[in-house]
Amino acid sequence: MECPTFCVWGANTAVGKTLVSKGLAEAAARRSLPCFYLKPVQTGFPDDSDADFVARGRTATTMGAHAAVAAGIERGGTSSPIADGSGGDGTWSHTEFAWARAVGPHLAAREEGRGVADSEVLRAVTAQLSEFSDHVGSALRLSFTSLTGDERPSGVALVETAGGVCSPAPSGALQCDVLRPLRLPAILVGDPKLGGISTTIASLETLAARGYDVVAIVMSGSACGNVDAVEQYASEFNQVGGGEDARGIPTFALPPVPERRIVGDVVGHGREIYEWLDDGRDVFDALLTHATSWHRERVRKMRTAPDEALRTLWWPFTQHDATPRENVTVIDSRCGEDFGVYSPDSNAIELRFDGAASWWTQGASKAEQTRLVRAASAAAGRYGHVMFPENVHAPALDAASELLKGAGRDWATRVFYSDNGSTAMEVAVKMAIRTYFVRKGFIPSPEKASDAADFLPQVRVLALDGSYHGDTLGTMDMQAPSVFTGPLQTPWYKPRGIFLRPPTLQMREGRWVVIQPERGPLPGGGGLAAGWATREEAFDHETRDETPLAKAYRAVVDAALDEAEADAKENGAPPVAALVMECVLHGAGGMDLIDPTFQRATIQACRARGLPVVLDEVFAGIWRLGAEGAWELLGEKPDVSCYAKLFTGGLTPLAATATTEEVFDAFRGPTKQNALLHGHSYTAYPIGCAVAAEAQRMYRDPLINDNLVEMGGGDARAALRELWDEHAARAISALPCVKGVTVIGCVLAIELEDSVGGGGGGGGGYSSTAARDVVLRLRARSIQARPLGNVLYLMCAPTTDPARCYDLIREVWTELSIVAAGDDDDW
Amino acid sequence: MECPTFCVWGANTAVGKTLVSKGLAEAAARRSLPCFYLKPVQTGFPDDSDADFVARGRTATTMGAHAAVAAGIERGGTSSPIADGSGGDGTWSHTEFAWARAVGPHLAAREEGRGVADSEVLRAVTAQLSEFSDHVGSALRLSFTSLTGDERPSGVALVETAGGVCSPAPSGALQCDVLRPLRLPAILVGDPKLGGISTTIASLETLAARGYDVVAIVMSGSACGNVDAVEQYASEFNQVGGGEDARGIPTFALPPVPERRIVGDVVGHGREIYEWLDDGRDVFDALLTHATSWHRERVRKMRTAPDEALRTLWWPFTQHDATPRENVTVIDSRCGEDFGVYSPDSNAIELRFDGAASWWTQGASKAEQTRLVRAASAAAGRYGHVMFPENVHAPALDAASELLKGAGRDWATRVFYSDNGSTAMEVAVKMAIRTYFVRKGFIPSPEKASDAADFLPQVRVLALDGSYHGDTLGTMDMQAPSVFTGPLQTPWYKPRGIFLRPPTLQMREGRWVVIQPERGPLPGGGGLAAGWATREEAFDHETRDETPLAKAYRAVVDAALDEAEADAKENGAPPVAALVMECVLHGAGGMDLIDPTFQRATIQACRARGLPVVLDEVFAGIWRLGAEGAWELLGEKPDVSCYAKLFTGGLTPLAATATTEEVFDAFRGPTKQNALLHGHSYTAYPIGCAVAAEAQRMYRDPLINDNLVEMGGGDARAALRELWDEHAARAISALPCVKGVTVIGCVLAIELEDSVGGGGGGGGGYSSTAARDVVLRLRARSIQARPLGNVLYLMCAPTTDPARCYDLIREVWTELSIVAAGDDDDW
Repeated sequence: MECPTFCVWGANTAVGKTLVSKGLAEAAARRSLPCFYLKPVQTGFPDDSDADFVARGRTATTMGAHAAVAAGIERGGTSSPIADGSGGDGTWSHTEFAWARAVGPHLAAREEGRGVADSEVLRAVTAQLSEFSDHVGSALRLSFTSLTGDERPSGVALVETAGGVCSPAPSGALQCDVLRPLRLPAILVGDPKLGGISTTIASLETLAARGYDVVAIVMSGSACGNVDAVEQYASEFNQVGGGEDARGIPTFALPPVPERRIVGDVVGHGREIYEWLDDGRDVFDALLTHATSWHRERVRKMRTAPDEALRTLWWPFTQHDATPRENVTVIDSRCGEDFGVYSPDSNAIELRFDGAASWWTQGASKAEQTRLVRAASAAAGRYGHVMFPENVHAPALDAASELLKGAGRDWATRVFYSDNGSTAMEVAVKMAIRTYFVRKGFIPSPEKASDAADFLPQVRVLALDGSYHGDTLGTMDMQAPSVFTGPLQTPWYKPRGIFLRPPTLQMREGRWVVIQPERGPLPGGGGLAAGWATREEAFDHETRDETPLAKAYRAVVDAALDEAEADAKENGAPPVAALVMECVLHGAGGMDLIDPTFQRATIQACRARGLPVVLDEVFAGIWRLGAEGAWELLGEKPDVSCYAKLFTGGLTPLAATATTEEVFDAFRGPTKQNALLHGHSYTAYPIGCAVAAEAQRMYRDPLINDNLVEMGGGDARAALRELWDEHAARAISALPCVKGVTVIGCVLAIELEDSVGGGGGGGGGYSSTAARDVVLRLRARSIQARPLGNVLYLMCAPTTDPARCYDLIREVWTELSIVAAGDDDDW
Repeated sequence: MECPTFCVWGANTAVGKTLVSKGLAEAAARRSLPCFYLKPVQTGFPDDSDADFVARGRTATTMGAHAAVAAGIERGGTSSPIADGSGGDGTWSHTEFAWARAVGPHLAAREEGRGVADSEVLRAVTAQLSEFSDHVGSALRLSFTSLTGDERPSGVALVETAGGVCSPAPSGALQCDVLRPLRLPAILVGDPKLGGISTTIASLETLAARGYDVVAIVMSGSACGNVDAVEQYASEFNQVGGGEDARGIPTFALPPVPERRIVGDVVGHGREIYEWLDDGRDVFDALLTHATSWHRERVRKMRTAPDEALRTLWWPFTQHDATPRENVTVIDSRCGEDFGVYSPDSNAIELRFDGAASWWTQGASKAEQTRLVRAASAAAGRYGHVMFPENVHAPALDAASELLKGAGRDWATRVFYSDNGSTAMEVAVKMAIRTYFVRKGFIPSPEKASDAADFLPQVRVLALDGSYHGDTLGTMDMQAPSVFTGPLQTPWYKPRGIFLRPPTLQMREGRWVVIQPERGPLPGGGGLAAGWATREEAFDHETRDETPLAKAYRAVVDAALDEAEADAKENGAPPVAALVMECVLHGAGGMDLIDPTFQRATIQACRARGLPVVLDEVFAGIWRLGAEGAWELLGEKPDVSCYAKLFTGGLTPLAATATTEEVFDAFRGPTKQNALLHGHSYTAYPIGCAVAAEAQRMYRDPLINDNLVEMGGGDARAALRELWDEHAARAISALPCVKGVTVIGCVLAIELEDSVGGGGGGGGGYSSTAARDVVLRLRARSIQARPLGNVLYLMCAPTTDPARCYDLIREVWTELSIVAAGDDDDW
């Protein structure tokens, strides 16, 4: 906004929020600064009208008077402050939603039968603030850049809440939750009464834990020494991102407020309140000065953040030379699926859909995010970290238990924790190879493991071309050679796999078809082309397993394994010890849905030969594709599988490698040498585990997650409803600029024709810049996507409202249609 | 404790905490259950005596009476409840610290000049509760096992706080912080007044964020609908470790409390309060039933946790077959350096020093831990996670800025984030090798990087034997062959280094000596033996660099590099591209202090040949060894260095790879292929970054960290004072069972003679069980250590009070002396 805006919160009811607002408005008037006071929710109206009191000049005789400042104000009205007009001293004020009953807003709304949704409150606050800042911005001809220098702001706006920080909004939700997306800087009015140290500090912590910046605490004096105690505590209170120079929160002490008395026919203050305001004049002036300079510093930090980032940070997967300053996005906060992004153009925070789900981690919509945050904060307070070996703590058990009855149900019995998908996969392959050694008799018994160690062969894995398992060397070695694995990137890379080129499944022109890769296992795929109207048919294993294509797949895999066996026998090549696959969908490889019939055939062929099956569900697992375990979609159980990303719902890194008891047993034995000697310092750290346990429950609980539906066919497992509208996806797939669409679970991926993007990228694949241009168009529509080569994708959470997805997919369709119609000069 | 104990907290003052305690005491009496009521801190005494009211029978006529229950009660007295005696109905009560003034305890303490330290309050509460539970346990002959079945508990104890949850203790600290180490389950008395929804919910959140379990909320009714709103919110409130069946917190609604009136000469309740207690009888009975069954469930969970752990978890670096049930430690919580450990013997939570600093991560004492928790919780609430490439958020900048002005000062300009030390080192070696390629002209210019890619040679690193850089394959490849790298553990291991055997430095019999390794660079080390009285002399580079030993070191390293160059030239062996070393101290390798003169010589030799220097400061960095950057101790700056563990102070995983601008520049160029294509989903996640920023400030701020001293010699950098008493270390090093001692910064490591431990382990090294037995002795002294082979070590935090260290090192000395005296049958 073009003028500093603060939200005035109370540590309790009747602590003098409106008096503080009035004091600030008068301080603004003394500086000839236009001030806008907004009361989004008011009860007891119009007998009580805080907006009235704040905007009224001192000519009125008592505070008991009730005349609305301007004709525009009405109960529940939506008139604008400008329409309402200014009161005395250049102060505008406005009441947005009002009820006559002098009770809490949630009760008033219920009793009077006029509810207001949280989103309506948010929308109204945003609209009113925008209108005012536009108004003062243009009227005073001050550009917002004045905020970054020494010049005066164009105005100041105050949003005053009702009651205390956790008092209910009209919907019944807490006000501090309802207003969170705006993250307006907070001025907390402390509680001067006995007990007020506690209520003030608890309120401060409640605001801080929701990510609000608390700019200042202001308290009127009292006999019980509250100010001193609060000031002491607040002066050492650390906030996020404050840096060294911005520690502590200042406390402003006001004179004691006069007792309320009967004035006219109501209880209130008489003219003595103006004396009190005069007494507090210096304090209010100092508070306003502090708040506006705090705001200036906030803006300065956001404006300079890109420069500092370009100077000190080193981003992953980013060519800094190809990242001009204007490409750097300053993220102020997150609320559910949306980023709060600082826009230098509007000098405001704008909400933008995080289309990449922050590298595929985000699992919580706004409402549920609170549950995860709470879990993190409670685990931090209770434990910090706890070293794991031979120790047990509740969150570690809890997260494991949820995993074993969730994605691990019916197959896994053990959970090994590590820090990310890459480490989870390194652990997984160690586990699988040891299991192979035991199964095949290389290690005849646990007691003989050490003796056998010197005679263990070098081994390989069977893997799929285009799959990705992480960036550490062990996982890179499981990838087929690519631009990521060359000596420029991974000097010690050595391919440890036999890599099959898998067939993919994609919606093309409204129909799901199997695409055989060039130089793939089925050259040409002649006579075995397959296609269906729905995705369900493509995943109908009972029918498809009987097709010639399925048999051809099995033959291809068997031939590859036969060849490897012969190579091992005849040439001493490392034998294949395990199957390693990304389950169902290759994520980083380009959102390629692998033909599930091919993956089934591969698993079955490997299992028939006694090879352990390792699935990488880091991307696909934990509801990503609509099922809790991605393996469920294949109808085949792994021996080892890895989970991360959605596992913690989008808060903290944590990965799990789940296994069968047979795999665990392969590491038992008399000595430590038999054990799995792998671990990281923060293995199973309580914060991560507590969040993972909560996230898994959140996805699975039908009382929390509205997207759950029962799966048919007598299976008691739940599944996600379709999140991305299939009709819209079909329409997109029919656009001439679109090669194909992949839509499953939380994933909507659109492969563009290589010619899209003006041929600048060309050739598709990683180096393509095709999708990049569409991404820029979407950004203007408040959607922040990140392309994967020529693949444009959007990722929602398992808890995202499908209505939201519908709006998003329509935006995508619209932008792509413009491209398809060729009427866009940019192309 | 042998009887369920709860802490009664108030959402505000005057919400009826004592009435609730009384109601619970009466409910206990109705079940003939002994009840102990403890008021640790009372003001306005003896006019006000909550203990008096709770224990008094109903025969007294008014609540205004002030007779102390028993003669033992006196102001600030320390008499026991048993001495005080029981009031009516089998209820004991006791007031521990009391002041006459009816103001907040911090004010009363100040005004009356009788302060009480937090530790005194804690000690008193613990002592009183223990005495009571012993008393009822033995008197009633009920074993604590009755708690796990359907039988009744032996008694119930209530600890009632003063004021609200955040009201100050006598010391001025918040009561909820002071009592945190005990983590007594909380009963929160809600606030029925207008505004009480907010104060109750904020208080609930404040308790939960400190890791308290909130068992129940209890509120008296009021006209403002508080109970309904609180009940609604609390019913969806998730706590840590609760599991699926234990979601939500129940709210118990009591009848409205009668108004206070003037009774006798004070304001209070008359006999009508007993009618109110009678009206609430069913509620109190239900609350007591709920609380005791909640307690039973808590105990059951802790008792079964080892079984569940052994059934479902897979610990890192642990042979499960060698982990009997009794070895499994149930960690209830952490407070500063101490674990709260569930002891099945006493059925209580006992504090135990976390001697391994939870795998070398812990940086905060109790007081500072709050700062880190606050940072974590605020970042969680504000951001959750934010995808990093091309994005910037305040915590990422903040943590980088702190690192660059701290451990990276004067050399580093860039920070690359990853998840743990292992990934940080994988990134570091990729960076160093690319830098080598650029320096040596293999990549002539950024534009030609892609063309050059096909002609880049395979390379090796120069590394030290016995060093450890993590468990992922890329870091394993930098380790010399060992039990960790065999095909049993790391099937794809391929040593990528030329490994030098380094000389070590250790205190032996009170003197610091250099130990040349067998088959090391200086066979025999004849004529070059070195030793000093103090560690400072061993680190006096100016003097030592001129010694023949230093010159011999340099010659050894040069010879190794010459040989490698010749091997590359003549045999096409991979050339050496970088130096990779753990800085100063080999941690996992056995707490071996490497002779700093040798590391200096190695760095200088490599730098002279244009080889980038990679330091692994994951263990040694961030104040571990007394300096913020461990490289400071060597007086040599790296090109790349890695930080983790203490970087986040012991809360969450996060690692940083810091580099010079030259290294960063090696990845610049026109295309993405030049960039560093490495990243993890949660790279630079805000929670981790916010904690890292706060932790670094915490260590470095002399107002927070009392252990900082100025370094001499005109260096403006600070250092840690000696934490482990050197005299005591010297005494330990002189014990016959001790081979040598390493004491530096936070580290106290004691290498035992191989014969110690009954020769069971034998041979020292990893497989030794020598230290294990001493560890068991220390556990009985509330010290939880974890041995590294035959090395026993204790690790404190950079903020640990040296007085605490002194007590600990004395315990170690005592236990080892017993061993040395040979008068212990266990040996």
